[in-house]
Amino acid sequence: MGDLDNGTDGFTQLRKLSPVPFDRVSVEGAFWYERMRVNREQTLQAEYRMLKETGRIDAFALDWKPGMEPRPHQFWDSDVAKWVEAASYSLATHPDAELERLLDEVVSAIVAAQQSDGYLNVYFTVVEPENRWKNLRDMHELYCAGHLMEAAVAHFQATDKRTLLDAMTRCADYIDSVFGDASGKRYGAPGHEEIELALVKLYRVTGERRYLRLSEFFLEQRGRKPSVFHLERPDEPPCPTSSVQDHLPVREQQDAVGHAVRAMYLYCGMADVASETEDEQLLHACERLWDSTTLRRMYITGGVGSTSVGECFTEDYDLPNSTAYAESCAAIGLVFFAHRMLQATGDGRYADVMERALYNGILSGVSLDGARFFYVNLLERTASQLTGDRHDRDLPTRQGWFGCACCPPNIARLLASLGQYVYSQADVELYVHLYVGGTARMSVAGHEVVVSQETDYPWDGLVRLRVRPEVAMWLALNLRIPGWCAKVDLYVDGRAVDVAECAHRGYVCVERKWSGDEVIELCMAMPVQRMYSHPDVKHDVGRVALQRGPMVYCLEAVDNPVEMHRIVLPRDAQLSARHESQLLGGVTVITGEALLADDTDWQETLYRSRPPRYRTVNIKAIPYCVWDNREVGPMAVWLREC
Amino acid sequence: MGDLDNGTDGFTQLRKLSPVPFDRVSVEGAFWYERMRVNREQTLQAEYRMLKETGRIDAFALDWKPGMEPRPHQFWDSDVAKWVEAASYSLATHPDAELERLLDEVVSAIVAAQQSDGYLNVYFTVVEPENRWKNLRDMHELYCAGHLMEAAVAHFQATDKRTLLDAMTRCADYIDSVFGDASGKRYGAPGHEEIELALVKLYRVTGERRYLRLSEFFLEQRGRKPSVFHLERPDEPPCPTSSVQDHLPVREQQDAVGHAVRAMYLYCGMADVASETEDEQLLHACERLWDSTTLRRMYITGGVGSTSVGECFTEDYDLPNSTAYAESCAAIGLVFFAHRMLQATGDGRYADVMERALYNGILSGVSLDGARFFYVNLLERTASQLTGDRHDRDLPTRQGWFGCACCPPNIARLLASLGQYVYSQADVELYVHLYVGGTARMSVAGHEVVVSQETDYPWDGLVRLRVRPEVAMWLALNLRIPGWCAKVDLYVDGRAVDVAECAHRGYVCVERKWSGDEVIELCMAMPVQRMYSHPDVKHDVGRVALQRGPMVYCLEAVDNPVEMHRIVLPRDAQLSARHESQLLGGVTVITGEALLADDTDWQETLYRSRPPRYRTVNIKAIPYCVWDNREVGPMAVWLREC
Repeated sequence: MGDLDNGTDGFTQLRKLSPVPFDRVSVEGAFWYERMRVNREQTLQAEYRMLKETGRIDAFALDWKPGMEPRPHQFWDSDVAKWVEAASYSLATHPDAELERLLDEVVSAIVAAQQSDGYLNVYFTVVEPENRWKNLRDMHELYCAGHLMEAAVAHFQATDKRTLLDAMTRCADYIDSVFGDASGKRYGAPGHEEIELALVKLYRVTGERRYLRLSEFFLEQRGRKPSVFHLERPDEPPCPTSSVQDHLPVREQQDAVGHAVRAMYLYCGMADVASETEDEQLLHACERLWDSTTLRRMYITGGVGSTSVGECFTEDYDLPNSTAYAESCAAIGLVFFAHRMLQATGDGRYADVMERALYNGILSGVSLDGARFFYVNLLERTASQLTGDRHDRDLPTRQGWFGCACCPPNIARLLASLGQYVYSQADVELYVHLYVGGTARMSVAGHEVVVSQETDYPWDGLVRLRVRPEVAMWLALNLRIPGWCAKVDLYVDGRAVDVAECAHRGYVCVERKWSGDEVIELCMAMPVQRMYSHPDVKHDVGRVALQRGPMVYCLEAVDNPVEMHRIVLPRDAQLSARHESQLLGGVTVITGEALLADDTDWQETLYRSRPPRYRTVNIKAIPYCVWDNREVGPMAVWLREC
Repeated sequence: MGDLDNGTDGFTQLRKLSPVPFDRVSVEGAFWYERMRVNREQTLQAEYRMLKETGRIDAFALDWKPGMEPRPHQFWDSDVAKWVEAASYSLATHPDAELERLLDEVVSAIVAAQQSDGYLNVYFTVVEPENRWKNLRDMHELYCAGHLMEAAVAHFQATDKRTLLDAMTRCADYIDSVFGDASGKRYGAPGHEEIELALVKLYRVTGERRYLRLSEFFLEQRGRKPSVFHLERPDEPPCPTSSVQDHLPVREQQDAVGHAVRAMYLYCGMADVASETEDEQLLHACERLWDSTTLRRMYITGGVGSTSVGECFTEDYDLPNSTAYAESCAAIGLVFFAHRMLQATGDGRYADVMERALYNGILSGVSLDGARFFYVNLLERTASQLTGDRHDRDLPTRQGWFGCACCPPNIARLLASLGQYVYSQADVELYVHLYVGGTARMSVAGHEVVVSQETDYPWDGLVRLRVRPEVAMWLALNLRIPGWCAKVDLYVDGRAVDVAECAHRGYVCVERKWSGDEVIELCMAMPVQRMYSHPDVKHDVGRVALQRGPMVYCLEAVDNPVEMHRIVLPRDAQLSARHESQLLGGVTVITGEALLADDTDWQETLYRSRPPRYRTVNIKAIPYCVWDNREVGPMAVWLREC
């Protein structure tokens, strides 16, 4: 990688890629098409029913009175907002009159709940009206507003309807009238970040710079001494400031700390503001926090946040497997952050993590039938975790819904908008970040350019691409060479391209005048790979994970009916991949011969000086993202290696 | 092992060894002499000061009034009782006028607190007099009485003074008038077992069979349907019955469950009653529970009780190292249980576990200077456990005292009475269970027999013994062949004895007429051993622990200033032992060459397909029992092996 790639101070220079938006990308490849279909046909419907049944939608009627059950909760608005966002994305690519009718109803209900001053929040309108803006740290007030803004932007972009957008700009105007540095306004910041990134979305769609400035204002409140959270409730003992990323001003933050979802959303807001204001200092803070997250505090699945205690990051290299937290929402937040950093830098390492989280720690969060979810994404499930002998808070199995229901609609909105993560554009440069069958329509110098992909990715590394401009034109096509890929060949109309020569920060660039007839073939070798962790990841030392392409694998007891902790994989054991079209919707499995510790000569002792004997055992690994779709049983990602 | 060794139903037949009591055994060998000296000169004094300072002794004056601080706690009496017991043992072998004066004072205070009906309990006399016998499950009322009975027996045996013994027989008589099957009496059982074993001690010293029957009564209350604990407080939701070993009648219990200390004390009571009543069914229950404890639920250090949640046993093979609970009191309870089973069976496997716990998980509980204690005995301490970044309940370092102060005086009473664990006698059979320099005076057929040992055990496997009867007599001397010992030679007056021929359930028997001039030499080979766990101990798979003789070893960061989790020990690495007389009071250390994972080429990634590189590193292991006596830092017992 050449020195010229970086800024002269060693930091990345700000670039500006623009993602090709969700409504311009058609996802047709089998892998994602099927997931998105289930999301559309099952998950969105099921989530609507749950939102309805639990009273979250009807709460917008504001007819709750003290003593009535259920009592609205302070985060309910956000659950509905994320569903609106997801349904909007879905409608943009898959029109559906019934879904549109439901969506209109929900949007009308939301808008009707807006107060005359622009305020819009069910909980603080009917349950604690006297406490509006009194406890920003704990009560999700600005967080809910942010999700409603994101929903409004998506709804407008997908449907061209302004109902919700107008309501949320009025709401943003009102919030802007309350918070700020100017005389007569107050200081404050959300305990759960979200509104920062939402205000930038609102700015981008409306052009109203006050929203961008308000986002920046909220960012800059963090880390003040005394804390804004302490000032708003001076009679309460200060909470640990790192849990809400309030330990330092954002520009000075070094490590990913505190509640993982909040951290990810904060970093997204920082990246957005840095990008819009061309604030390289803020971007460099994002890069530091990215490195902290992904080089020291991320599971191999892209999961982040190691502990259930506060749903937080812990410390460098602390990545326990059977007690992993790795909340689905946090992996989704990591994708949001990665996507923003990718647009800001054009650096493929961001796309590598985005892909890792998408194919592993996020997809694992929803069952193949779209009806059951993981909030927590373990990397190992032991038999004892399933017996309930332990005092674990929850049995670690998929659930249809959660009291704290953030994850299911978050997964739904991510899947429904998957298209927007695939391509970017910057003038005449086109970027393909993800290999997903389908097409994207871009506009270059006033002309439409259609980029299409045909591939069986992630099961196969061959991708056939076409670039079809309306008129022949000079374009630079940047194809991502994934970090997992050690051997790649590229052909344009059958002629080999020297990939090493043309590779640059994770992308190979093909610059030429495109007529539209060219066939591009990218062939990524996709062997079974043994993956190792940094030697300071204590829970993985001496262990190996299997990966093929972007997919991390795991062993489930249903395929490996032995005591899984007794399995050890010799370093020289042959492993092979084979596609099973009938299994789990069609997956490539990895099989091989491992060793299994024998307990038959251990009846009389718990400890002895003779090591256990081993016998051979066939193992079968499936992609991590489809685990817990059959029998409930033990699972492991990291296998002992000998 | 011959079939004739067992009862015809496959169970062990009851034997009756009698331990040679603490006042007949003089411990002179350097290893234990030094520990007992520190216990006598430092620990007993320090504990007296803490009992005094915290108000535990003065509470017996019964002058507490509502609103006064400190308020007596329901377990305070037991802390004082264990100190009285420890001080009594110490006085028996090491007269000390000042200690005797303190002891007399404390005993007078206790006795003065006895009520006219015989009741003796500070808490329920001054704090909740209206609630006497109302909550046996939680309030430690019978538990405290039991400890005072143990103290009374020890005090009488050590000093011949009947003050406390008479008080506690009156108390036992009173308790016997309250509880029982007879009309006018009530049902009930202690939530924390202890009185069961104490009543048997009281029976043995007084000959009063009612105490034995009362012990049996308390045992038989457990596991009734409905539970006696539920009956006594029917308005409260039933608590989990296994936590107080109330899930099944004791004779039907299969697994060691619930609070580990309570379990151990219960099993002691069962073994005592089984032995006194020659109840083989009850003994067989003890054998099952012994197997459950030691074959499936015990750390290599002899620690038991894996979790801090309820201080409980969890499930088979669940033995986490860095979150081990392994309370000092529970290992002590295991020694009590082992000692009883050893007397009841003469089987060396009980002595093996007794030795394992004594030299490892119990000795670890007190610092070399006798002033600081572990309540929890980790088998691994990580750097992060010491930073306080985690939300752990306590930093895992030695403390001078605990709010719940059970462990320090428990360690003190065990060390002060160590002599009683060394020898047993059954008619003309003498048993040497532990190799401890010193002498024991036994009485055989009216003649004194002195058995003496000279040895540097546990650092050296050579033991020289003498058997000196007053008059030449025929005696069977049974010398234990420890389970850890794979090679042993035995010489009597220089003539080799065929050990294999004479070995029987862990003992080699030398039967002859002894004149007193014979010199017996037992030579146990003591190489460094690599120890492995049963393959279902998930936390130890792929790992090895070092042991030499009875001593389990560990690595401390102060000797191994590297990231300890990066160390891996090749299976063929040479390990050697060397005595360091200046280190930690003189210990044999183990040194060797291991491998250390290198992180220098891991700056850019957290996961990669190339395994870590290793370089050689010298390691040094010290006995586990002396860890945390220098710098506070990481420690590990189980090392990864490759």
